[in-house]
Amino acid sequence: MKKGHTITVVGLGLIGGSMAIDLKENGFAAKIIGVDTNSDSEDKALRRRIIDEAMPLEKAVAVSDFIIVATPVDAMKKVLPAVLDLTDEQVVLDVGSTKETLLESLRNHKKRGRYVATHPMAGTEFSGIEAAVPNLFTHKYTVICDAADSDADALEKTENLYASMQMHIARLNAKAHDVHTAYISHISHISSFALALTVLEKEADEEKIFELASSGFGSTVRLAKSSPDMWVPIFRQNRDNVLDVLDEHINTLSRFRSLLIKKDFDTFYRLIEEANSIKKILKS
Amino acid sequence: MKKGHTITVVGLGLIGGSMAIDLKENGFAAKIIGVDTNSDSEDKALRRRIIDEAMPLEKAVAVSDFIIVATPVDAMKKVLPAVLDLTDEQVVLDVGSTKETLLESLRNHKKRGRYVATHPMAGTEFSGIEAAVPNLFTHKYTVICDAADSDADALEKTENLYASMQMHIARLNAKAHDVHTAYISHISHISSFALALTVLEKEADEEKIFELASSGFGSTVRLAKSSPDMWVPIFRQNRDNVLDVLDEHINTLSRFRSLLIKKDFDTFYRLIEEANSIKKILKS
Repeated sequence: MKKGHTITVVGLGLIGGSMAIDLKENGFAAKIIGVDTNSDSEDKALRRRIIDEAMPLEKAVAVSDFIIVATPVDAMKKVLPAVLDLTDEQVVLDVGSTKETLLESLRNHKKRGRYVATHPMAGTEFSGIEAAVPNLFTHKYTVICDAADSDADALEKTENLYASMQMHIARLNAKAHDVHTAYISHISHISSFALALTVLEKEADEEKIFELASSGFGSTVRLAKSSPDMWVPIFRQNRDNVLDVLDEHINTLSRFRSLLIKKDFDTFYRLIEEANSIKKILKS
Repeated sequence: MKKGHTITVVGLGLIGGSMAIDLKENGFAAKIIGVDTNSDSEDKALRRRIIDEAMPLEKAVAVSDFIIVATPVDAMKKVLPAVLDLTDEQVVLDVGSTKETLLESLRNHKKRGRYVATHPMAGTEFSGIEAAVPNLFTHKYTVICDAADSDADALEKTENLYASMQMHIARLNAKAHDVHTAYISHISHISSFALALTVLEKEADEEKIFELASSGFGSTVRLAKSSPDMWVPIFRQNRDNVLDVLDEHINTLSRFRSLLIKKDFDTFYRLIEEANSIKKILKS
Protein backbone atom coordinates (compact mmCIF):
# COMPACT_ATOMS: atom_id res chain seq x y z
CA MET A 1 0.00 0.00 0.00
CA LYS A 2 1.50 3.27 -1.12
CA LYS A 3 1.63 5.80 1.66
CA GLY A 4 2.22 9.48 1.71
CA HIS A 5 -0.73 10.61 -0.39
CA THR A 6 -1.84 14.15 -1.02
CA ILE A 7 -5.40 14.49 0.24
CA THR A 8 -7.79 17.38 -0.21
CA VAL A 9 -10.56 17.88 2.32
CA VAL A 10 -13.45 19.98 1.02
CA GLY A 11 -15.44 21.29 3.97
CA LEU A 12 -13.37 21.90 7.08
CA GLY A 13 -15.67 20.90 9.92
CA LEU A 14 -15.92 18.25 12.62
CA ILE A 15 -15.77 15.28 10.23
CA GLY A 16 -13.40 16.57 7.58
CA GLY A 17 -11.09 18.06 10.19
CA SER A 18 -11.05 14.93 12.34
CA MET A 19 -10.29 12.74 9.30
CA ALA A 20 -7.47 15.09 8.29
CA ILE A 21 -5.90 14.82 11.73
CA ASP A 22 -5.89 11.00 11.69
CA LEU A 23 -4.80 10.59 8.07
CA LYS A 24 -1.81 12.86 8.62
CA GLU A 25 -0.98 11.32 11.96
CA ASN A 26 -1.03 7.73 10.68
CA GLY A 27 1.09 8.57 7.65
CA PHE A 28 -1.52 7.73 5.00
CA ALA A 29 -1.39 11.39 3.99
CA ALA A 30 1.86 13.21 3.42
CA LYS A 31 0.01 16.44 2.75
CA ILE A 32 -3.48 17.69 3.56
CA ILE A 33 -4.98 20.48 1.48
CA GLY A 34 -8.03 22.28 2.82
CA VAL A 35 -10.82 23.86 0.77
CA ASP A 36 -13.63 25.77 2.42
CA THR A 37 -15.93 28.58 1.29
CA ASN A 38 -15.35 30.08 4.74
CA SER A 39 -11.82 31.49 4.83
CA ASP A 40 -12.06 31.70 8.60
CA SER A 41 -12.33 27.90 8.77
CA GLU A 42 -9.31 27.61 6.47
CA ASP A 43 -7.33 29.98 8.71
CA LYS A 44 -8.24 28.06 11.85
CA ALA A 45 -7.37 24.73 10.20
CA LEU A 46 -3.99 26.16 9.14
CA ARG A 47 -3.28 27.57 12.59
CA ARG A 48 -4.11 24.23 14.24
CA ARG A 49 -1.96 22.52 11.55
CA ILE A 50 -4.92 20.32 10.61
CA ILE A 51 -4.22 21.24 6.98
CA ASP A 52 -0.87 22.01 5.39
CA GLU A 53 -2.23 24.41 2.82
CA ALA A 54 -5.50 26.05 1.72
CA MET A 55 -6.17 26.22 -2.01
CA PRO A 56 -8.99 26.95 -4.44
CA LEU A 57 -10.89 23.79 -5.36
CA GLU A 58 -9.62 23.45 -8.93
CA LYS A 59 -5.96 23.68 -7.99
CA ALA A 60 -6.42 21.36 -5.02
CA VAL A 61 -8.10 18.61 -7.05
CA ALA A 62 -5.36 18.78 -9.68
CA VAL A 63 -2.55 17.96 -7.23
CA SER A 64 -4.40 15.42 -5.03
CA ASP A 65 -4.68 11.62 -4.91
CA PHE A 66 -7.87 11.72 -2.84
CA ILE A 67 -10.57 14.36 -2.50
CA ILE A 68 -12.78 13.95 0.58
CA VAL A 69 -16.00 15.97 0.40
CA ALA A 70 -17.15 16.70 3.94
CA THR A 71 -19.62 19.55 3.52
CA PRO A 72 -23.24 19.46 4.73
CA VAL A 73 -25.21 17.06 2.51
CA ASP A 74 -27.09 19.78 0.59
CA ALA A 75 -23.83 21.37 -0.55
CA MET A 76 -22.57 17.94 -1.64
CA LYS A 77 -25.05 17.89 -4.50
CA LYS A 78 -23.22 20.88 -5.98
CA VAL A 79 -19.68 20.18 -4.81
CA LEU A 80 -19.43 16.53 -5.86
CA PRO A 81 -20.31 17.01 -9.55
CA ALA A 82 -17.94 20.00 -9.62
CA VAL A 83 -15.13 17.91 -8.14
CA LEU A 84 -15.82 15.00 -10.50
CA ASP A 85 -15.77 17.41 -13.47
CA LEU A 86 -12.17 18.23 -12.46
CA THR A 87 -11.20 14.60 -11.76
CA ASP A 88 -8.86 12.49 -13.85
CA GLU A 89 -7.60 9.42 -11.98
CA GLN A 90 -8.04 10.77 -8.46
CA VAL A 91 -10.36 9.09 -5.97
CA VAL A 92 -13.31 11.20 -4.78
CA LEU A 93 -15.26 10.31 -1.67
CA ASP A 94 -17.97 11.89 0.36
CA VAL A 95 -18.71 11.30 4.04
CA GLY A 96 -22.38 12.32 4.08
CA SER A 97 -25.13 10.94 6.31
CA THR A 98 -27.67 10.48 3.49
CA LYS A 99 -27.01 8.69 0.24
CA GLU A 100 -29.99 7.84 -1.93
CA THR A 101 -30.79 11.22 -3.50
CA LEU A 102 -27.11 12.13 -3.71
CA LEU A 103 -26.21 8.95 -5.61
CA GLU A 104 -29.24 9.35 -7.83
CA SER A 105 -28.03 12.82 -8.79
CA LEU A 106 -24.57 11.47 -9.69
CA ARG A 107 -25.71 8.33 -11.48
CA ASN A 108 -24.92 9.53 -14.97
CA HIS A 109 -21.78 11.51 -14.28
CA LYS A 110 -19.05 10.38 -16.66
CA LYS A 111 -16.59 10.15 -13.77
CA ARG A 112 -18.98 8.21 -11.46
CA GLY A 113 -16.44 5.37 -11.28
CA ARG A 114 -13.87 7.59 -9.53
CA TYR A 115 -16.36 8.34 -6.78
CA VAL A 116 -16.89 6.18 -3.69
CA ALA A 117 -19.90 6.93 -1.46
CA THR A 118 -18.90 6.48 2.19
CA HIS A 119 -20.31 7.25 5.60
CA PRO A 120 -17.92 6.98 8.53
CA MET A 121 -20.32 6.39 11.43
CA ALA A 122 -18.99 8.63 14.16
CA GLY A 123 -19.46 12.16 15.30
CA THR A 124 -20.15 14.39 18.24
CA GLU A 125 -22.76 17.01 18.96
CA PHE A 126 -20.22 19.73 18.19
CA SER A 127 -19.49 21.21 14.79
CA GLY A 128 -16.96 23.27 12.94
CA ILE A 129 -13.20 22.91 12.61
CA GLU A 130 -12.89 23.81 16.32
CA ALA A 131 -14.61 20.51 17.11
CA ALA A 132 -12.19 18.33 15.13
CA VAL A 133 -10.49 15.73 17.33
CA PRO A 134 -8.07 12.83 16.84
CA ASN A 135 -9.25 9.20 16.86
CA LEU A 136 -12.94 10.06 16.44
CA PHE A 137 -13.28 7.14 14.03
CA THR A 138 -10.95 4.51 15.50
CA HIS A 139 -12.61 1.04 15.57
CA LYS A 140 -15.91 2.48 14.27
CA TYR A 141 -17.66 1.44 11.05
CA THR A 142 -17.61 3.09 7.66
CA VAL A 143 -20.49 2.22 5.34
CA ILE A 144 -19.66 2.10 1.65
CA CYS A 145 -22.76 2.45 -0.53
CA ASP A 146 -23.38 1.04 -3.99
CA ALA A 147 -19.77 -0.14 -4.19
CA ALA A 148 -20.33 -1.79 -7.57
CA ASP A 149 -20.72 1.63 -9.18
CA SER A 150 -17.18 2.62 -8.20
CA ASP A 151 -14.03 1.61 -10.09
CA ALA A 152 -12.29 -1.33 -8.43
CA ASP A 153 -9.09 0.63 -7.82
CA ALA A 154 -10.98 3.61 -6.35
CA LEU A 155 -12.80 1.26 -4.00
CA GLU A 156 -9.61 -0.47 -2.94
CA LYS A 157 -7.82 2.82 -2.30
CA THR A 158 -10.77 4.07 -0.26
CA GLU A 159 -10.78 0.90 1.82
CA ASN A 160 -7.05 1.39 2.42
CA LEU A 161 -7.70 4.96 3.54
CA TYR A 162 -10.29 3.85 6.12
CA ALA A 163 -8.15 0.85 7.15
CA SER A 164 -5.34 3.29 7.97
CA MET A 165 -7.79 4.93 10.40
CA GLN A 166 -8.49 1.50 11.98
CA MET A 167 -12.09 1.56 10.78
CA HIS A 168 -14.22 -1.47 9.93
CA ILE A 169 -16.06 -1.46 6.63
CA ALA A 170 -19.67 -2.47 5.91
CA ARG A 171 -21.38 -2.37 2.52
CA LEU A 172 -24.99 -1.40 2.02
CA ASN A 173 -26.99 -0.14 -0.92
CA ALA A 174 -27.92 3.53 -0.66
CA LYS A 175 -31.58 2.85 0.03
CA ALA A 176 -30.83 0.46 2.92
CA HIS A 177 -28.25 2.89 4.28
CA ASP A 178 -30.79 5.69 4.43
CA VAL A 179 -33.40 3.53 6.16
CA HIS A 180 -30.92 2.28 8.74
CA THR A 181 -29.43 5.68 9.51
CA ALA A 182 -32.96 7.00 10.03
CA TYR A 183 -33.31 4.38 12.79
CA ILE A 184 -29.89 4.42 14.38
CA SER A 185 -28.98 8.08 14.03
CA HIS A 186 -31.52 10.53 12.62
CA ILE A 187 -34.41 9.70 14.98
CA SER A 188 -32.08 10.01 17.98
CA HIS A 189 -31.42 13.59 16.95
CA ILE A 190 -35.09 14.49 16.50
CA SER A 191 -35.84 12.87 19.85
CA SER A 192 -33.14 14.94 21.54
CA PHE A 193 -34.19 18.19 19.85
CA ALA A 194 -37.80 17.57 20.90
CA LEU A 195 -36.86 16.64 24.46
CA ALA A 196 -34.74 19.76 24.81
CA LEU A 197 -37.59 21.95 23.50
CA THR A 198 -40.17 20.28 25.75
CA VAL A 199 -38.07 20.85 28.83
CA LEU A 200 -36.85 24.32 27.85
CA GLU A 201 -40.42 25.52 27.29
CA LYS A 202 -41.50 24.28 30.69
CA GLU A 203 -38.51 25.39 32.64
CA ALA A 204 -38.16 28.77 30.93
CA ASP A 205 -38.59 30.73 34.13
CA GLU A 206 -36.67 28.39 36.35
CA GLU A 207 -33.17 28.03 35.03
CA LYS A 208 -31.90 26.95 38.39
CA ILE A 209 -33.75 23.67 38.11
CA PHE A 210 -31.32 22.48 35.45
CA GLU A 211 -28.60 22.41 38.07
CA LEU A 212 -30.51 19.47 39.48
CA ALA A 213 -30.52 17.59 36.20
CA SER A 214 -28.59 14.36 36.50
CA SER A 215 -26.33 12.85 33.89
CA GLY A 216 -29.24 10.83 32.47
CA PHE A 217 -30.93 14.00 31.28
CA GLY A 218 -27.66 15.25 29.82
CA SER A 219 -27.22 12.00 27.96
CA THR A 220 -30.64 12.07 26.29
CA VAL A 221 -30.44 15.72 25.23
CA ARG A 222 -26.73 15.81 24.34
CA LEU A 223 -27.52 15.57 20.62
CA ALA A 224 -29.81 18.60 20.91
CA LYS A 225 -26.67 20.72 20.74
CA SER A 226 -26.17 19.56 17.13
CA SER A 227 -25.98 22.13 14.35
CA PRO A 228 -29.05 22.86 12.19
CA ASP A 229 -26.69 23.61 9.30
CA MET A 230 -25.66 19.98 9.28
CA TRP A 231 -28.97 18.40 10.29
CA VAL A 232 -31.67 20.23 8.34
CA PRO A 233 -30.15 19.11 5.00
CA ILE A 234 -30.05 15.53 6.33
CA PHE A 235 -33.71 15.64 7.36
CA ARG A 236 -34.60 17.21 4.03
CA GLN A 237 -32.82 14.50 2.02
CA ASN A 238 -33.95 11.59 4.20
CA ARG A 239 -37.41 13.00 4.87
CA ASP A 240 -39.48 9.95 3.91
CA ASN A 241 -37.49 7.48 6.00
CA VAL A 242 -37.30 9.87 8.94
CA LEU A 243 -41.07 10.39 8.78
CA ASP A 244 -41.65 6.62 8.90
CA VAL A 245 -39.44 6.19 11.94
CA LEU A 246 -40.82 9.30 13.64
CA ASP A 247 -44.36 7.94 13.20
CA GLU A 248 -43.31 4.67 14.81
CA HIS A 249 -41.56 6.48 17.64
CA ILE A 250 -44.61 8.65 18.32
CA ASN A 251 -46.73 5.47 18.29
CA THR A 252 -44.45 3.83 20.85
CA LEU A 253 -44.60 6.90 23.09
CA SER A 254 -48.38 6.97 22.69
CA ARG A 255 -48.47 3.35 23.79
CA PHE A 256 -46.64 4.29 27.00
CA ARG A 257 -49.07 7.19 27.39
CA SER A 258 -52.06 4.93 27.03
CA LEU A 259 -50.64 2.49 29.60
CA LEU A 260 -50.18 5.35 32.08
CA ILE A 261 -53.75 6.52 31.50
CA LYS A 262 -55.06 2.99 32.06
CA LYS A 263 -52.63 2.46 34.95
CA ASP A 264 -51.58 -0.78 33.26
CA PHE A 265 -48.21 -0.97 34.97
CA ASP A 266 -47.81 -4.70 34.31
CA THR A 267 -47.62 -4.10 30.58
CA PHE A 268 -45.48 -1.01 31.23
CA TYR A 269 -43.07 -3.27 33.15
CA ARG A 270 -42.97 -5.78 30.32
CA LEU A 271 -42.24 -3.07 27.74
CA ILE A 272 -39.33 -1.78 29.83
CA GLU A 273 -37.98 -5.32 30.04
CA GLU A 274 -38.18 -5.51 26.24
CA ALA A 275 -36.41 -2.16 25.94
CA ASN A 276 -33.72 -3.46 28.31
CA SER A 277 -32.66 -5.94 25.63
CA ILE A 278 -30.89 -3.01 23.98
CA LYS A 279 -28.18 -3.96 26.51
CA LYS A 280 -27.20 -6.93 24.40
CA ILE A 281 -26.73 -4.72 21.41
CA LEU A 282 -25.00 -1.62 22.73
CA LYS A 283 -21.32 -2.08 23.33
CA SER A 284 -21.14 0.22 26.33
CA MET B 1 -19.44 18.04 63.35
CA LYS B 2 -19.25 14.64 64.99
CA LYS B 3 -17.79 12.02 62.71
CA GLY B 4 -17.70 8.29 62.89
CA HIS B 5 -21.45 7.60 62.80
CA THR B 6 -23.12 4.24 62.54
CA ILE B 7 -25.27 4.28 59.42
CA THR B 8 -27.78 1.69 58.28
CA VAL B 9 -28.57 1.43 54.59
CA VAL B 10 -31.90 -0.29 53.87
CA GLY B 11 -31.92 -1.46 50.25
CA LEU B 12 -28.50 -2.41 48.92
CA GLY B 13 -28.57 -1.26 45.31
CA LEU B 14 -26.89 1.30 43.09
CA ILE B 15 -27.83 4.32 45.22
CA GLY B 16 -27.62 2.86 48.72
CA GLY B 17 -24.40 1.02 47.89
CA SER B 18 -22.76 4.07 46.29
CA MET B 19 -23.67 6.26 49.28
CA ALA B 20 -22.28 3.63 51.66
CA ILE B 21 -18.96 3.59 49.80
CA ASP B 22 -18.56 7.38 49.98
CA LEU B 23 -19.75 7.80 53.58
CA LYS B 24 -17.29 5.17 54.78
CA GLU B 25 -14.48 6.49 52.62
CA ASN B 26 -14.88 10.11 53.78
CA GLY B 27 -15.05 9.11 57.44
CA PHE B 28 -18.59 10.35 58.10
CA ALA B 29 -19.51 6.75 58.85
CA ALA B 30 -17.43 4.58 61.16
CA LYS B 31 -19.67 1.61 60.49
CA ILE B 32 -22.15 0.76 57.74
CA ILE B 33 -24.89 -1.77 58.43
CA GLY B 34 -26.75 -3.26 55.49
CA VAL B 35 -30.38 -4.42 55.44
CA ASP B 36 -31.87 -6.08 52.40
CA THR B 37 -34.70 -8.53 51.85
CA ASN B 38 -32.39 -10.23 49.36
CA SER B 39 -29.65 -12.05 51.30
CA ASP B 40 -27.66 -12.36 48.09
CA SER B 41 -27.35 -8.56 47.95
CA GLU B 42 -26.23 -8.54 51.60
CA ASP B 43 -23.61 -11.21 50.84
CA LYS B 44 -22.28 -9.30 47.85
CA ALA B 45 -22.17 -6.04 49.83
CA LEU B 46 -20.24 -7.79 52.61
CA ARG B 47 -17.81 -9.39 50.17
CA ARG B 48 -17.14 -6.04 48.48
CA ARG B 49 -16.80 -4.50 51.99
CA ILE B 50 -19.47 -1.93 51.09
CA ILE B 51 -21.13 -2.80 54.40
CA ASP B 52 -19.47 -3.91 57.62
CA GLU B 53 -22.34 -6.05 58.81
CA ALA B 54 -25.78 -7.26 57.72
CA MET B 55 -28.55 -7.19 60.33
CA PRO B 56 -32.30 -7.53 60.65
CA LEU B 57 -34.02 -4.13 60.39
CA GLU B 58 -35.05 -3.82 64.03
CA LYS B 59 -31.59 -4.51 65.40
CA ALA B 60 -29.96 -2.25 62.81
CA VAL B 61 -32.18 0.75 63.58
CA ALA B 62 -31.54 0.35 67.33
CA VAL B 63 -27.76 0.76 66.98
CA SER B 64 -27.66 3.42 64.24
CA ASP B 65 -27.37 7.20 64.12
CA PHE B 66 -28.74 7.40 60.57
CA ILE B 67 -31.01 5.09 58.61
CA ILE B 68 -30.93 5.64 54.84
CA VAL B 69 -33.85 4.02 53.03
CA ALA B 70 -32.77 3.30 49.45
CA THR B 71 -35.33 0.77 48.23
CA PRO B 72 -37.52 1.22 45.13
CA VAL B 73 -40.12 3.92 45.86
CA ASP B 74 -43.06 1.50 46.21
CA ALA B 75 -41.29 -0.42 48.98
CA MET B 76 -40.55 2.88 50.74
CA LYS B 77 -44.19 3.31 51.60
CA LYS B 78 -43.93 0.20 53.77
CA VAL B 79 -40.32 0.44 54.92
CA LEU B 80 -40.32 4.07 56.05
CA PRO B 81 -43.24 3.83 58.52
CA ALA B 82 -41.73 0.57 59.85
CA VAL B 83 -38.36 2.29 60.37
CA LEU B 84 -39.98 5.34 61.98
CA ASP B 85 -41.93 3.05 64.33
CA LEU B 86 -38.56 1.79 65.59
CA THR B 87 -36.96 5.24 65.73
CA ASP B 88 -36.08 7.14 68.87
CA GLU B 89 -33.60 10.00 68.22
CA GLN B 90 -32.06 8.57 65.05
CA VAL B 91 -32.27 10.40 61.74
CA VAL B 92 -34.17 8.62 58.97
CA LEU B 93 -33.82 9.64 55.34
CA ASP B 94 -34.99 8.28 52.04
CA VAL B 95 -33.37 8.83 48.67
CA GLY B 96 -36.38 8.24 46.43
CA SER B 97 -37.13 9.83 43.06
CA THR B 98 -40.76 10.69 43.88
CA LYS B 99 -41.94 12.50 46.96
CA GLU B 100 -45.52 13.76 47.00
CA THR B 101 -47.45 10.55 47.68
CA LEU B 102 -44.72 9.25 49.98
CA LEU B 103 -44.76 12.36 52.16
CA GLU B 104 -48.53 12.40 52.16
CA SER B 105 -48.51 8.84 53.55
CA LEU B 106 -46.11 9.83 56.35
CA ARG B 107 -47.74 13.14 57.24
CA ASN B 108 -49.28 11.94 60.49
CA HIS B 109 -46.56 9.61 61.67
CA LYS B 110 -45.65 10.52 65.26
CA LYS B 111 -41.95 10.36 64.36
CA ARG B 112 -42.29 12.46 61.18
CA GLY B 113 -39.84 14.99 62.62
CA ARG B 114 -36.99 12.44 62.64
CA TYR B 115 -37.47 11.88 58.92
CA VAL B 116 -35.85 13.98 56.17
CA ALA B 117 -37.03 13.50 52.59
CA THR B 118 -34.05 13.71 50.24
CA HIS B 119 -33.27 12.97 46.62
CA PRO B 120 -29.60 12.88 45.66
CA MET B 121 -29.77 13.62 41.92
CA ALA B 122 -27.35 11.14 40.41
CA GLY B 123 -27.46 7.64 39.06
CA THR B 124 -26.55 5.41 36.20
CA GLU B 125 -28.52 3.07 33.96
CA PHE B 126 -27.24 0.12 35.98
CA SER B 127 -28.80 -1.31 39.12
CA GLY B 128 -28.10 -3.60 42.04
CA ILE B 129 -25.23 -3.63 44.51
CA GLU B 130 -22.90 -4.70 41.66
CA ALA B 131 -23.46 -1.26 40.14
CA ALA B 132 -22.41 0.71 43.24
CA VAL B 133 -19.47 3.01 42.54
CA PRO B 134 -17.49 5.63 44.47
CA ASN B 135 -18.01 9.36 43.89
CA LEU B 136 -21.32 8.96 42.05
CA PHE B 137 -22.67 11.98 43.91
CA THR B 138 -19.65 14.28 44.18
CA HIS B 139 -20.53 17.88 43.26
CA LYS B 140 -24.11 16.89 42.36
CA TYR B 141 -27.29 18.24 43.98
CA THR B 142 -29.43 16.71 46.68
CA VAL B 143 -32.98 17.99 46.90
CA ILE B 144 -34.47 18.16 50.39
CA CYS B 145 -38.27 18.24 50.32
CA ASP B 146 -40.66 19.82 52.82
CA ALA B 147 -37.75 20.58 55.13
CA ALA B 148 -39.99 22.41 57.62
CA ASP B 149 -41.61 19.10 58.56
CA SER B 150 -38.31 17.69 59.81
CA ASP B 151 -36.78 18.41 63.22
CA ALA B 152 -34.08 21.07 63.03
CA ASP B 153 -31.37 18.73 64.30
CA ALA B 154 -32.37 15.94 61.92
CA LEU B 155 -32.18 18.40 59.04
CA GLU B 156 -28.80 19.72 60.09
CA LYS B 157 -27.37 16.24 60.50
CA THR B 158 -28.69 15.25 57.08
CA GLU B 159 -27.11 18.32 55.51
CA ASN B 160 -23.83 17.40 57.18
CA LEU B 161 -24.10 13.89 55.77
CA TYR B 162 -24.54 15.20 52.20
CA ALA B 163 -21.89 17.87 52.72
CA SER B 164 -19.41 15.11 53.62
CA MET B 165 -20.15 13.67 50.15
CA GLN B 166 -19.39 17.10 48.59
CA MET B 167 -22.99 17.50 47.44
CA HIS B 168 -24.87 20.78 47.01
CA ILE B 169 -28.28 21.09 48.60
CA ALA B 170 -31.47 22.53 47.11
CA ARG B 171 -34.83 22.76 48.85
CA LEU B 172 -38.15 22.22 47.11
CA ASN B 173 -41.60 21.30 48.25
CA ALA B 174 -42.61 17.76 47.36
CA LYS B 175 -45.07 18.83 44.67
CA ALA B 176 -42.52 21.00 42.87
CA HIS B 177 -39.92 18.26 43.19
CA ASP B 178 -42.18 15.74 41.46
CA VAL B 179 -43.04 18.13 38.61
CA HIS B 180 -39.39 19.00 38.03
CA THR B 181 -38.11 15.43 38.14
CA ALA B 182 -40.79 14.50 35.61
CA TYR B 183 -39.16 17.05 33.26
CA ILE B 184 -35.49 16.56 33.97
CA SER B 185 -35.38 12.83 34.64
CA HIS B 186 -38.52 10.74 34.21
CA ILE B 187 -39.38 11.82 30.64
CA SER B 188 -35.78 11.12 29.56
CA HIS B 189 -36.25 7.53 30.65
CA ILE B 190 -39.56 7.07 28.83
CA SER B 191 -38.03 8.64 25.74
CA SER B 192 -35.10 6.20 25.88
CA PHE B 193 -37.31 3.18 26.52
CA ALA B 194 -39.51 4.15 23.57
CA LEU B 195 -36.57 4.84 21.27
CA ALA B 196 -35.02 1.48 22.11
CA LEU B 197 -38.31 -0.31 21.42
CA THR B 198 -38.88 1.55 18.15
CA VAL B 199 -35.47 0.63 16.84
CA LEU B 200 -35.45 -2.93 18.24
CA GLU B 201 -38.77 -3.68 16.56
CA LYS B 202 -37.54 -2.47 13.21
CA GLU B 203 -34.12 -4.00 13.36
CA ALA B 204 -35.23 -7.33 14.84
CA ASP B 205 -33.88 -9.37 11.95
CA GLU B 206 -30.80 -7.33 11.36
CA GLU B 207 -28.72 -7.30 14.49
CA LYS B 208 -25.62 -6.51 12.56
CA ILE B 209 -26.89 -3.04 11.81
CA PHE B 210 -26.35 -2.01 15.41
CA GLU B 211 -22.62 -2.35 14.88
CA LEU B 212 -23.01 0.73 12.73
CA ALA B 213 -24.73 2.73 15.45
CA SER B 214 -22.64 5.70 16.44
CA SER B 215 -22.19 7.05 19.92
CA GLY B 216 -25.12 9.44 19.45
CA PHE B 217 -27.53 6.54 19.31
CA GLY B 218 -25.90 4.97 22.35
CA SER B 219 -26.26 8.21 24.23
CA THR B 220 -29.98 8.61 23.60
CA VAL B 221 -30.86 4.99 24.42
CA ARG B 222 -28.42 4.51 27.31
CA LEU B 223 -31.19 4.98 29.89
CA ALA B 224 -33.22 2.22 28.21
CA LYS B 225 -31.03 -0.23 30.11
CA SER B 226 -32.60 1.00 33.36
CA SER B 227 -34.36 -1.48 35.62
CA PRO B 228 -38.17 -1.76 35.55
CA ASP B 229 -38.06 -2.68 39.26
CA MET B 230 -36.85 0.82 39.99
CA TRP B 231 -38.73 2.72 37.31
CA VAL B 232 -42.25 1.28 37.24
CA PRO B 233 -42.84 2.35 40.87
CA ILE B 234 -41.59 5.85 39.98
CA PHE B 235 -43.92 6.11 37.00
CA ARG B 236 -46.77 4.78 39.12
CA GLN B 237 -46.21 7.34 41.89
CA ASN B 238 -45.52 10.27 39.56
CA ARG B 239 -48.06 9.24 36.94
CA ASP B 240 -49.94 12.53 36.63
CA ASN B 241 -46.84 14.69 36.19
CA VAL B 242 -45.23 12.20 33.84
CA LEU B 243 -48.41 12.11 31.73
CA ASP B 244 -48.38 15.90 31.42
CA VAL B 245 -44.77 15.97 30.27
CA LEU B 246 -45.24 12.97 27.97
CA ASP B 247 -48.17 14.75 26.31
CA GLU B 248 -46.04 17.82 25.74
CA HIS B 249 -43.17 15.72 24.40
CA ILE B 250 -45.46 13.88 21.98
CA ASN B 251 -46.82 17.27 20.89
CA THR B 252 -43.32 18.56 20.22
CA LEU B 253 -42.47 15.45 18.19
CA SER B 254 -45.75 15.82 16.30
CA ARG B 255 -44.77 19.38 15.49
CA PHE B 256 -41.52 18.12 13.92
CA ARG B 257 -43.56 15.49 12.10
CA SER B 258 -45.92 18.10 10.71
CA LEU B 259 -43.02 20.27 9.54
CA LEU B 260 -41.50 17.29 7.71
CA ILE B 261 -44.84 16.56 6.04
CA LYS B 262 -45.17 20.18 4.95
CA LYS B 263 -41.47 20.34 4.05
CA ASP B 264 -41.25 23.47 6.16
CA PHE B 265 -37.53 23.22 6.75
CA ASP B 266 -37.17 26.89 7.66
CA THR B 267 -39.27 26.41 10.79
CA PHE B 268 -37.52 23.08 11.38
CA TYR B 269 -34.21 24.98 11.33
CA ARG B 270 -35.51 27.57 13.77
CA LEU B 271 -36.72 24.88 16.19
CA ILE B 272 -33.31 23.19 16.15
CA GLU B 273 -31.72 26.56 16.90
CA GLU B 274 -34.08 26.90 19.85
CA ALA B 275 -33.21 23.39 21.03
CA ASN B 276 -29.52 24.31 20.73
CA SER B 277 -29.97 26.74 23.61
CA ILE B 278 -29.83 23.67 25.88
CA LYS B 279 -26.06 24.23 25.44
CA LYS B 280 -26.18 27.13 27.82
CA ILE B 281 -27.82 24.99 30.45
CA LEU B 282 -25.98 21.68 30.30
CA LYS B 283 -22.64 21.69 32.01
CA SER B 284 -20.99 19.27 29.61
